[in-house]
Amino acid sequence: MKNIKIVVEYDGTAYHGWQSQRNAVAIQDVIEAALENLTGEEIKLTGSGRTDAGVHAFGQVANFRTSSSIPPQKISYALNGVLPRDIVVKHSREVKAKFHSRYDAKAKKYKYIILNSEFPTVFMRDRAWHIRTPLDCDAMREALKGFLGTHDFSSFMSSGSSVESTVRTVFSTCLHEDGECIEVEVTANGFLYNMMRIIVGTLVEVGTGEAQPGEIPGIVESGKREKAGITAPAHGLYLVKVYYDSPE
Amino acid sequence: MKNIKIVVEYDGTAYHGWQSQRNAVAIQDVIEAALENLTGEEIKLTGSGRTDAGVHAFGQVANFRTSSSIPPQKISYALNGVLPRDIVVKHSREVKAKFHSRYDAKAKKYKYIILNSEFPTVFMRDRAWHIRTPLDCDAMREALKGFLGTHDFSSFMSSGSSVESTVRTVFSTCLHEDGECIEVEVTANGFLYNMMRIIVGTLVEVGTGEAQPGEIPGIVESGKREKAGITAPAHGLYLVKVYYDSPE
Repeated sequence: MKNIKIVVEYDGTAYHGWQSQRNAVAIQDVIEAALENLTGEEIKLTGSGRTDAGVHAFGQVANFRTSSSIPPQKISYALNGVLPRDIVVKHSREVKAKFHSRYDAKAKKYKYIILNSEFPTVFMRDRAWHIRTPLDCDAMREALKGFLGTHDFSSFMSSGSSVESTVRTVFSTCLHEDGECIEVEVTANGFLYNMMRIIVGTLVEVGTGEAQPGEIPGIVESGKREKAGITAPAHGLYLVKVYYDSPE
Repeated sequence: MKNIKIVVEYDGTAYHGWQSQRNAVAIQDVIEAALENLTGEEIKLTGSGRTDAGVHAFGQVANFRTSSSIPPQKISYALNGVLPRDIVVKHSREVKAKFHSRYDAKAKKYKYIILNSEFPTVFMRDRAWHIRTPLDCDAMREALKGFLGTHDFSSFMSSGSSVESTVRTVFSTCLHEDGECIEVEVTANGFLYNMMRIIVGTLVEVGTGEAQPGEIPGIVESGKREKAGITAPAHGLYLVKVYYDSPE
């Protein structure tokens, strides 16, 4: 059996998230069906983590075991021939037998796109959070620094998730203005449930002046979800990259 | 009666082009229906020109006459409240009674996006022409110069269109590389049927080395459609801007 790692880009608009669920089509289901179609085997994909309904990915990572004779690097081409056009496998290769895309992930980078304009643009309609109120990017950039480092991020976690520890380390943050788009990137060793979306919801409160950049450390320290901002909508969020010890 | 000018952005994927046709939904129909809904009047929109099925616009211009009491600048807001999300009116204002969006247009700018990459990207799937073969952008940039100036562009017109003159003036051209995207912009006093798409189809032949940049003037001069390249697919094309004598 070979262990194959794939890197997947998807437009999450049409799906109920990455992970299989009852009565809803998940991205994982679609790729597993395509793999079964190609290999004749029953394939179980292991993703690096869930993404919610409507969330997109430039580089979700998953792995699976197969006895297929398709050369590992060609699996991406074969899959793209049968996958719908909103899912593209960018890369495939054989990895060590013990590689596990979730357990071995050392860090993840997420991007959130805000469209800050009078009118929405049709080309970003399921791909950015449209906000009319002009946002103060300098204040938001300053606020982002408050998330850096190792903290208990309970204030930035939606209820309904069970994790052993709510401590995470944010390695880097970045806010980039590109015309009317504001792109926020956060890289951390892991993200709690909805953590990136609550970070962005809180940043937007800073951007509108409802909150001050200096309040972030206190919100983090409080451990109280209600101190943070709203959960930003799913459709502005992108899983950009999953980092592992070994190079890809 | 007021004469109202609107600037419209649309994702053309779901429509059979700008202009009303039998048995197919055109963008014009959708906006007219929205206007009738708002004003209670039967409204006839005049567009600056057609766009084909699947072609997009950042700035299509249209005008219509109305007795509505909605303040002209507010019409865009009112329309966006009822239009589907793939059509957005960016701007509306009252113009002189004799303004005609087609007859008064002095120039148009089109953009064509080519995605030049090994794999398609899901986010451009209906919005760019995906070409795997690496294209030589310098050669394409050189070739673009051959279109500048006033010429009979019969070689770059699809049959089935009837026009008084096939002479047009290309004012400026531009090729911009943005990562894996190649964006070609052409501004002219007018475009023959499919002219921009045939220009791009020909440019791509230069990009792959099938044709040389120096051949463009001869292809233009020949007046023969078969000397030019293929008609590039509609879904990579965007009407960027329509120019008029008076400022917007």
